[in-house]
Formats: sequence, C-alpha cells, structure tokens
Amino acid sequence: MARKRQMKLSAYLVGTGMHAGSWRLEQAHPGASIDIDYYRRLVQTAERGKFDIAFLADSLAINDQSHPNILNRFEPITLIAALAGATSRIGLVATASTSYIEPFNLARLFMSADHISKGRVGWNIVTTRDLSGSTARNFGASTHPELALRYQKAAEFVNVVRGLWDSWEDDAFIFNKETGVVFDPNKLHRIRHKGEFFEVEGPLNIARSPQGHPVLVQAGNSEPGQQFAAQIGEIIFAIKFNFEDARQYYQAFKERIVSFGRNPDDVYILQGISPVIGATEEEARLKLKRLERLLPDDTIMGFLADYFRELDLSRFTPETASKEAGLHTLNAIHPDYRKHQPVIIRENPTLREVYSLIIGSFSGDHLIGTPEKIADTLEKWFLEGAADGFMLMSPALPDGLEEFIDRVVPILQQRGLFKKDYEGTTLREHFGLPVPPNRFCRQTV
Amino acid sequence: MARKRQMKLSAYLVGTGMHAGSWRLEQAHPGASIDIDYYRRLVQTAERGKFDIAFLADSLAINDQSHPNILNRFEPITLIAALAGATSRIGLVATASTSYIEPFNLARLFMSADHISKGRVGWNIVTTRDLSGSTARNFGASTHPELALRYQKAAEFVNVVRGLWDSWEDDAFIFNKETGVVFDPNKLHRIRHKGEFFEVEGPLNIARSPQGHPVLVQAGNSEPGQQFAAQIGEIIFAIKFNFEDARQYYQAFKERIVSFGRNPDDVYILQGISPVIGATEEEARLKLKRLERLLPDDTIMGFLADYFRELDLSRFTPETASKEAGLHTLNAIHPDYRKHQPVIIRENPTLREVYSLIIGSFSGDHLIGTPEKIADTLEKWFLEGAADGFMLMSPALPDGLEEFIDRVVPILQQRGLFKKDYEGTTLREHFGLPVPPNRFCRQTV
Ligand SMILES: Cc1cc2nc3c(=O)[nH]c(=O)nc-3n(C[C@H](O)[C@H](O)[C@H](O)COP(=O)(O)O)c2cc1C
Ligand SMILES: Cc1cc2nc3c(=O)[nH]c(=O)nc-3n(C[C@H](O)[C@H](O)[C@H](O)COP(=O)(O)O)c2cc1C
Repeated sequence: MARKRQMKLSAYLVGTGMHAGSWRLEQAHPGASIDIDYYRRLVQTAERGKFDIAFLADSLAINDQSHPNILNRFEPITLIAALAGATSRIGLVATASTSYIEPFNLARLFMSADHISKGRVGWNIVTTRDLSGSTARNFGASTHPELALRYQKAAEFVNVVRGLWDSWEDDAFIFNKETGVVFDPNKLHRIRHKGEFFEVEGPLNIARSPQGHPVLVQAGNSEPGQQFAAQIGEIIFAIKFNFEDARQYYQAFKERIVSFGRNPDDVYILQGISPVIGATEEEARLKLKRLERLLPDDTIMGFLADYFRELDLSRFTPETASKEAGLHTLNAIHPDYRKHQPVIIRENPTLREVYSLIIGSFSGDHLIGTPEKIADTLEKWFLEGAADGFMLMSPALPDGLEEFIDRVVPILQQRGLFKKDYEGTTLREHFGLPVPPNRFCRQTV
Repeated sequence: MARKRQMKLSAYLVGTGMHAGSWRLEQAHPGASIDIDYYRRLVQTAERGKFDIAFLADSLAINDQSHPNILNRFEPITLIAALAGATSRIGLVATASTSYIEPFNLARLFMSADHISKGRVGWNIVTTRDLSGSTARNFGASTHPELALRYQKAAEFVNVVRGLWDSWEDDAFIFNKETGVVFDPNKLHRIRHKGEFFEVEGPLNIARSPQGHPVLVQAGNSEPGQQFAAQIGEIIFAIKFNFEDARQYYQAFKERIVSFGRNPDDVYILQGISPVIGATEEEARLKLKRLERLLPDDTIMGFLADYFRELDLSRFTPETASKEAGLHTLNAIHPDYRKHQPVIIRENPTLREVYSLIIGSFSGDHLIGTPEKIADTLEKWFLEGAADGFMLMSPALPDGLEEFIDRVVPILQQRGLFKKDYEGTTLREHFGLPVPPNRFCRQTV
C-alpha cells in the first residue's frame, strides 16, 4: 500500500521571532539575531521536530524603521554553512537576491554550502523589493530595476547558475594514482554564456553535490514573480490569510505549473503560518494580546504614516479600526498592501493589527488556539487542496517553535499527516525531488 | 620580566597538500579538497598544535592545467564559517579578491563569519592574478584590470568595507524592554561613499564583531602590492627561498611600514615554508624524491611549455637542468617567474624542481631534514630579522601538518619560541593586534 502523502514543514528562523514586539517579551533574548549558539539550538530544535527545512530570510538594506530582528543579523549563506555542522538531516534554505551579486559568486557560495552540508541546501531566490532605493544605493546603482526587468534578469541568472553547477560531470574525477590521471577533460564543461545581462565562461571550480544542485525555492507573489516561480521553483512559499484565498492560490498556481509542462506534484507549495498556541483558546488570545501590547504606539503610527503617505493618520491611535482610518478607501500602491488588502477590507483590523500584518506577524483566527485547533486547520488546508505543507513563522522564538514541535507535531504524526522520522539525508530526498540531470551529459537510453 | 617575543604559526590547508604530486601518495585522499570531515580534522589538528591561523587560499578560475587540489574545492568563506563550529580558538583566514565582488557583499560575508566564529576571522586580501583572462571571463569582463589599477581599486574597496564594518557603534543597541527603544539612531552610520570605483551608501546590516573588524591579511609581492600591504596589512605573507632574501625582504618591508607612519611591530610578516621532515636528513630527502617522482612527465613538460612560451623545451625532460634548458637566458615576463628567478639562476634546479617551485611546493635545503634542523632554520629566521612567524605550506597533508606539530612544535616550545597554549580567544588577541577604533565615534579624551 502506498504511504499517505506527507505534509512538509519548514521553520522560519529569525531572532526573537516574526512579531516586531517579540524581543520585549520577558523571556526574549534581544541579541538573538547575532548569536550563533542560539541559532544552533533553534535549528537543532527544528531537527528534533523532524522539520524538512530551516529557512533563513534576507534583505540587503536597513533603515531606522526596520524590524528589530533584521537590523543586525547573520548573512544567511555563511549561517547555513555554520548550521550544517550542528545538524545532520534538516534541509537548510538561505535567501539570496539575483539583483546584486555575480552569478559566478552565488553559484560557488551555494554549491560550497551544499557540499559542506552533504546535500541539504536550498536557495530561496528573490529579486529584492526596494521601494526607497536604499538597496540599490548600497550597490552603486541609482535606482532599483523595476519588477519585470528584475525577473527577466533572474531567469537568466538562474540559468547561468545551473549551467555552472553542471561544470563537472559526476564521474569526471578519476584520480588514478597509478597513471597520474586526475580527471577526464571531456567531462569538464564551460557554459560560455553570453546573454542579455550576463557573460560567464566557466567552468565552476566546484563539482555537483550529493543532491546534484541545491533545491530552488521561490516566493514571487506578483504576476511576473509567479510566472518565474512556476517555471523554475521546486518549493514555493506563499502567505495567504484564510482558507479560501489559500485554496484559490494553490489551485491556480498548480495549473500554472502544468502550463509550463511540469508535473504539479514535483512542486511543493508551503503556506506561511504564524500560529499562537495556548492550552485553551482564551490563553492563546491573551498571549497574542500581550504581544500586541509590546508594540510601542509611536513605532506603529510612525511606520504607518510613512507607509500610507496618502492618508493623514495623525488623529488616530493603534486602536483605531482600519475602516475608520480610511484604509479601505486606498488605491493600493504598495505591492505589500495589495497583498494584505483582502484582510483589511474584509476583517477591519485595528491599525495595530494592520502593522503586525505588514511587518509579518499576523495570524488569522484559524491559527489562534489549542494545538488541536491548529492541527485541524493545517489538516484541512493540506487535505483540501490549499497547501503541500507549511512555513512556520513563529511570532515568538524559540517558544513558538518548541510549542509547535511539542504539541502540534505529535498530533499531525498521530493522524499520519507528518513523518515520524527522516528517511533520506539530502533535502531533495526529504521532498522526493529528482536529482537534476547534468545539462552537458549525453543522454543514455 | 617581559615574556620573550613569540613566533606566529599559520597552517595553509589545501586538500592533499601543496605538492602537485601529493594526491598520488599511497595514504593520500584525493577527494580531500571537497571533504568537510577531512577539513574539520585538519583544522582541529592545527588547533591541537596551538597554531594561530588556519589559512585558506582561493582562486576564481581553473583550467586543465590547474593543481589537482584546486579544481574542485570549497569556497573559503563558507568553509571558515563551517570550520568555526569545529574549533574554538584558532584564527580562520579566508582569501577573497577585491576585483570581482561588490564591497557590500564582501563586508557582510566576512563580518558574518567573524560573528559566527566569535571574532576569529581574517581576510586575505588579493587582487587576483589572471594572465589568461579566464577569471575576467567568468565575470563578464573582457580583460582583467592591470596591476596598478587593481591595487587602486583594492585600496578604495578596503576603505569602503572598513567603513561599512563601522556602521554600528559598539553601544548602539539598547534593547530596553520597558521603553521599547531598540537602538540609538545617533549611533547608526552611513558611509555615503562616492569614489572612483564604488558608490556605497550603507549602513551595513550587521554590527562589529568581538574583535571589531576581521584581521586584514595581505600577500602582495609586486611594488604596488607591497605599497598596499604596507598601508593596510596587519599580517603579511611572503615566500622567500633562502635566508638572505627573506631577511632583505623583511627589513625593507618593515621600513616601508614605518614610511607610512605605522608601528612595524603591529604588522606581522609570516614566511611561507614547505618543510620535508624525516628522522634523518637522508629520510627527508628520500621523501621529497618520492613526491617528485609522482609528478607525471607530460604534466610537467606540458605546463612548462605553456609557461615559458619563448623557449622550445621539446627536446628536454623533467630531469634536464634549468640552465641547460635555457631558463636563465629568459627575460622574465611572468611575475611568477620573476619571483622564482633568483633560485633558478643561483641553484640550477631541474625542470621538475622548477615546476614544483612555480606550482608552489618547493623547499630549499634548509627546510629538508630532521625536526631539529627545521626548528634551527625557523629559529634563525625568527631571531635574526627575517620573519615574525611562518606559514606552513605542507607538501603533503595531513601528514606534513601532523609531523610538524608532533615533532617540530615541541622543540620550538622548549626553546621558548612558541606558546604552549592560547591566551586569548580572538584572532586579534593571538597577535596582540588592537581592536580598530570605529571611524564614526567621537574621540573621547
Ligand atoms: C515565506 C516568505 C519568505 C520571504 N522571504 C523573503 C526574503 O527573505 N527576502 C526578500 O527579499 N523577499 C522575501 N520574500 C518576498 C518574496 O520573495 C517576493 O519578493 C514577494 O512575495 C513579492 O513578490 P514579487 O517579487 O513577485 O513582487 C518572502 C516571501 C515569503 C512568502
Ligand atoms: C602565502 C601566500 C598565499 C597566497 N594566496 C593567494 C590566494 O589564495 N589567491 C590569490 O589569488 N593569490 C594568493 N597569493 C598571491 C598574492 O596575493 C599576490 O597576488 C602575489 O604574491 C603577487 O603579488 P602582486 O599581486 O603584488 O603581483 C598568495 C601569496 C602568498 C605568499
């Protein structure tokens, strides 16, 4: 009998957690985002919970308004290289942008980390959002390229990187001590790429890893972003705030995958969740309230005034409802706002909640409550065509991760929805993803 | 009483060793250059020997003639991030070029590794030699910039990186849970650099490390290279093949440091050595002979024919003396050749030895022999003004490192020339190098 399809789980690891007030919790360690011992414990916890992935986000610019956990943090590729030694099974996904690094350097960094981890690495490909141009100005560019151009460049970038990763055929190295032959020169390849954005000759000075290539992860939300993701992504991250949106997105995206001639079962869609877990629903609600109260009023209002420049918010407080403040009248200019608009319009959250939503620490009702309720929600999304798995974006860390592992994971395992142990050792094996063929190999029949 | 000045030791870690034939030794592990467990053991061995540094070289292009150990190897920054977790005291120096990466990315990668290792990282700054243009072609450039230009660019690059490293003052973060204040905005700085080669606004999204900045390491050999090194280097690597050359270089370089208004005792010159150790001199000589015999004739002659294009070498074999082959008549065009010319002219090595010399696995007579003889050579160089320490470039690994630690280090320790244990925890502490002041801090009197 074929085993039941298994849910995939990824842990989003970021300092004291997604919630911008989390660092103020009594038990929080505000220096967490730069403490390697803390990150080692986090990723070991995730591995104890049999998570498929530990995920590290990234950004290339900060300002005074930035989330406290990203002002001062590790660069994610060096971080996964370090975390590889503290773990043996969990996949390690680092985010890196295609807009501000040379493809040769990126190809090397990721393949090196993939060898260091013995085939457990994934690359979360982003093109970087940069509304204020502050990222561009860190790289000598006067303006950030616009969306469509960014994804054109990203497509060529990824093609170059994959070509470089195939520089060496898997059996190129001979190392015959008798004859002194090191490798077969016919199995060393140069891509000699000359494209619209990049010229790269190759070869790369590192061979393919035990899983062939790092796994390609994507989270594009715009139309060009989704087109890109549907063509090259193997794992897709999305954030949807209710079941209906999540299901619609999931179904449409799987169709999009098919439209590119790919098998929709080879692409995993993981939905971002920020559950708040309590012994009772009441306890969970109180917990979230306590977190919300840790967001200073002027931080919230300062951020929102800057974000919704078209509105005068000076008369309002974080407790004002978004409709009263006029948010529903906005013709959304921000891609971020467009993403969250359905919730704002439908659920009329307070300005405090809108802030949490934008800054990334919002959970709908269906994810606030007892471990059973949360397991029910995940089961429904998983079985009814809204998710292949989840990205756990805990409001507070390490607590949120530990609680999820100690209280929700066992329920999912009992229900046969989540594995009791790792079976493979590479990230591709965890997902049943094929080792990519080498583009330079003659096909054998 | 002040303690005697102590010799510094650095271990050059590269696969099966410096010698191009080392992978063919019976005990050699030819896949070493891509085996993370092997590197972990190597660096732990170096730490057992109380080495100050484990050093990782780099290059950004390969071809069919490349040294077997560099065809397929780890990227060094990811590698030191991984090795940090396997060690607790030894310094970790990675090589990176200023010619093919954005300063913002490099600043982040190194500072992140420095935090991961809790202040044990150094950056070996190179500008990359690229005679054939193959590196340039991996980065969309048609030609590699010429020497003087490369060092001009490097100087500006390093200035930008150091500025980015100072983005956060050490006491910028407040994290007051009561008031919700995260940091003091007056202690966050943008460099707003607009120079000849780079425009970088900042700030960097990572704070200074426990040692302030990674240590700056340099090995420029040309005139512009030495000028650059004398201005910014804190640890300098050189390779000289006899005492007189080493002493002359050492004295001249220290004067150069003084000419830039720096204290010569704050800059450490480490001389590269490739000792061959035996119980007797005879045994050491045999060992080297055995290694030399592992270099295939056609590899050697193919390499040299390409390298000395002006000469017709087709009538010769690796056993031909360099004078007979006409090498001493050459008007050296290669910077590499110029570097080795004194040895070739004075000592008339065989073509096999010339090859070893160029490819980096040559040792003069003074470094072939018993542990005592080698200790005597190091003592002389150290006490008589030719070195502040040594870079151990073992012909064969791990054996060469293990023998040196088990047999030479104890002699150096007995003679009071080398420490018996680490005293500090950061790389700067191992060298007594000061924590660099933050350029944005108001001076306190
Ligand atoms: C779970 C998740 C994690 C993300 N992590 C990052 C990140 O670390 N860095 C980043 O620049 N963007 C990140 N994004 C944003 C997306 O990559 C993407 O830029 C965004 O959804 C907008 O899509 P678009 O680029 O197609 O406009 C993430 C998105 C999701 C859903
Ligand atoms: C011990 C030692 C290690 C070196 N490692 C590297 C290296 O890893 N990568 C590199 O490109 N150059 C390396 N070099 C070369 C120097 O950085 C420098 O480029 C070379 O000595 C020529 O000097 P120049 O650049 O001033 O011409 C090394 C040199 C020495 C002495």
